[in-house]
Amino acid sequence: MNEQSTKSAATQPAVSHATFAVERAYPVPPERVFFAFSNLDSKRRWFAEGEGWVVLEFTSDFSVGGSEFSRFRFGDGPEITNDTQYQNIVTNERIVITYRMAVAGAPISVSLATIEFSPSGKGTVLTYTEQGVYFDDASAGANREIGCRELMEALARELAVAA
Amino acid sequence: MNEQSTKSAATQPAVSHATFAVERAYPVPPERVFFAFSNLDSKRRWFAEGEGWVVLEFTSDFSVGGSEFSRFRFGDGPEITNDTQYQNIVTNERIVITYRMAVAGAPISVSLATIEFSPSGKGTVLTYTEQGVYFDDASAGANREIGCRELMEALARELAVAA
Repeated sequence: MNEQSTKSAATQPAVSHATFAVERAYPVPPERVFFAFSNLDSKRRWFAEGEGWVVLEFTSDFSVGGSEFSRFRFGDGPEITNDTQYQNIVTNERIVITYRMAVAGAPISVSLATIEFSPSGKGTVLTYTEQGVYFDDASAGANREIGCRELMEALARELAVAA
Repeated sequence: MNEQSTKSAATQPAVSHATFAVERAYPVPPERVFFAFSNLDSKRRWFAEGEGWVVLEFTSDFSVGGSEFSRFRFGDGPEITNDTQYQNIVTNERIVITYRMAVAGAPISVSLATIEFSPSGKGTVLTYTEQGVYFDDASAGANREIGCRELMEALARELAVAA
């Protein structure tokens, strides 16, 4: 599933909408994968940290209506902020979030992400579906999907170490 | 544009994703249409009130990061809640919101809506694009689009009276 539409008018910046879905299997049960999303330290490790990334701020309230905020940059790059809100939580089964991102203070996108955890043998199939709107960059949806796949690999490393 | 995918697994409720877009022309300039979204009293009139609807609560903070909350029912029906957050605002041009809805306390959906105001002659073309995830009801996306078109007509009446 990959759908993208671009709209542009002379009077306002282009806005594009895109949806993508990423599926990834992990060799640990749903409870363990869910924990990596709900636990602050674990989430910070695989989601915010990583070689070359400087985490300036990371706070999270994992509850419906709760906010998660991260502020970071890559190397000497511009500051990036992520304002997330938890919208729906079904323990060990589903998390729905919305988030907006800005680079150097300029809004670049708003997204709605559905994360589903399904048992598969002794492991888990995670399905990540993101519906988003992007400002001023019609190719941003495709780039976001690449970034998302990288995060799913970072999560695999977190689960391998801490399992 | 109308895309819908349904996923269902034995271990968790069905989740469906849908996107729809509604376009509506109004005979007043973008500033006037934008005002009907940004002004609390005007928004409440066309968005929350209406024949048969009982508005139990309506509060709004029209600013990025600000929340809007409404609690209402239709006749003697169950209580419905709408938790909205303003995600992006470009005065007279664009509003992006996310919102979750619940009926009798049970979550039914989370949505990301992009509202664009484009000048057209002396009037405005409003484009409303909603990307959503629905819980336990695969036909909910189609119903939401019907409800949205009704709201665009209620907005037309508000603009006709107050213009």
